Amino acid sequence: MENSTFQRLRRSQVSQIRETIRANAYGGHTAGLADGLLQANLAILPEEYALDFMRFCQRNPKPCPLVGVSDTGNPAIPTLGPDIDIRTDVPAYNIYRRGRLEAEVSDIDTLWNDGLVTFAIGCSFTFEHALIKAGISLWHIDNNSTVPMFRTNIPTIAAGPFSGPLVVSMRAIRADQVDLAVDLSRKFPLAHGAPIHAGNPAEIGIRNIDQPDWGEPAPLPNGCVPVFWACGVTPQVVIENARVQLCITHKPGHMLITDVPEDAEIAVLNPTQPNDCPTRRNQ
Amino acid sequence: MENSTFQRLRRSQVSQIRETIRANAYGGHTAGLADGLLQANLAILPEEYALDFMRFCQRNPKPCPLVGVSDTGNPAIPTLGPDIDIRTDVPAYNIYRRGRLEAEVSDIDTLWNDGLVTFAIGCSFTFEHALIKAGISLWHIDNNSTVPMFRTNIPTIAAGPFSGPLVVSMRAIRADQVDLAVDLSRKFPLAHGAPIHAGNPAEIGIRNIDQPDWGEPAPLPNGCVPVFWACGVTPQVVIENARVQLCITHKPGHMLITDVPEDAEIAVLNPTQPNDCPTRRNQ
Repeated sequence: MENSTFQRLRRSQVSQIRETIRANAYGGHTAGLADGLLQANLAILPEEYALDFMRFCQRNPKPCPLVGVSDTGNPAIPTLGPDIDIRTDVPAYNIYRRGRLEAEVSDIDTLWNDGLVTFAIGCSFTFEHALIKAGISLWHIDNNSTVPMFRTNIPTIAAGPFSGPLVVSMRAIRADQVDLAVDLSRKFPLAHGAPIHAGNPAEIGIRNIDQPDWGEPAPLPNGCVPVFWACGVTPQVVIENARVQLCITHKPGHMLITDVPEDAEIAVLNPTQPNDCPTRRNQ
Repeated sequence: MENSTFQRLRRSQVSQIRETIRANAYGGHTAGLADGLLQANLAILPEEYALDFMRFCQRNPKPCPLVGVSDTGNPAIPTLGPDIDIRTDVPAYNIYRRGRLEAEVSDIDTLWNDGLVTFAIGCSFTFEHALIKAGISLWHIDNNSTVPMFRTNIPTIAAGPFSGPLVVSMRAIRADQVDLAVDLSRKFPLAHGAPIHAGNPAEIGIRNIDQPDWGEPAPLPNGCVPVFWACGVTPQVVIENARVQLCITHKPGHMLITDVPEDAEIAVLNPTQPNDCPTRRNQ
């Protein structure tokens, strides 16, 4: 299925989107799909690493905002969607062994085992939607490009075998809109929150803004400030550094689409919650 | 030391406050101490329960907003304060064995062992301060009473051996201030966030609003609405239900005082973060 056709499947058809991905009828990126719903980065690890990885996420909530954790060996994540099967519901997966990318696959049925734990981590799509709605233009989206990402000289806070540099994504923001971009993205702690830096890239260890470590270069027009947000590539780098025997992630850009509204207060579906509560009223 | 004297030690003297508590020169409750700093509920568990307990907190972020997790066997939590020693820095501890309260102590040096993991969980003081600053009066604070707390008929989302009902705290809010109270507390996801219910207590399984399960009764004056927030007693109840062989908590009201500003975006001290970043500017 073409992405342009598929984009017409919006929020109300999230189960249909996941079914299509599950049937391997769609393997593209998920940007723009299921408008208004939270999408997530994915890291699947053996249980022996799970406690330290959760500690790493807790200590580094800006690059690693944890939005879901499975039971060990269970491919479901009912807090994010009642029918999610993590073995099939992501368009494309990367398989890492001892920190090296080994393969890219469309399903992980044959790799799944009783000792694996799935972690879902919030992604930048959420705050990008809020910026765009507020009239802040994002070059990589307007130009169907991948946001430029950089290693910084800012260390993450280690947990067990997990450590490494903070990775950031860069968006050029018009100088008079930087404060607005900060205030808006700060409202989404489950999607990296406020930027970690605005201004001189060298101050966070970025030597050449035109040579991103991941993604594609983006222009920095006169009157714009480079603004840097903590990035979901960070956990991938620390997992590579830890040389975990097996780790499965989503292929960058090919996210898990959840049933959780992206402006929800918490990333948990709870059908037992009363409907009249003020929390819901505000969502 | 008297609480009234001690209250004069404010935010700038947080290390002095912890030293005083550490020396057992203060064993009282921590409400009103260290103005502007995050305080936390405490649960210390054997490592074998730690992964499931972290999952429980992730799935139930309103009653259990996780603000810190120690390494196994390490009494420090540097992300919350560089000098914190969890064995001594809380004014009073409750010791539970197999789910039963066994003792109340002022230190846990002799109980500490290499297999324990400390969890710090955000508490209601944070959003209460925001409500008071906005002109919303809170009866239990004006009257030096303990907020009334109730078991509800709302189940938490289980993780491993941890399950049980959501516990809530009730505050009577003037009808015309309920929306404000909701909006303000929603800004503090690390302190239980927005209320889970406002209005009829029976709808969440509370039969008698004058008979709280914990704390002291509070009046419900004409023109006020009972508003219910998820409560940090919830994790204590699920830990009791799980009959964990050893669990150490703070004595209710006797919290861990951290170095983290209560309006910080994240509950992590990170001295390596650049000082000029917009995140800091907004704090």
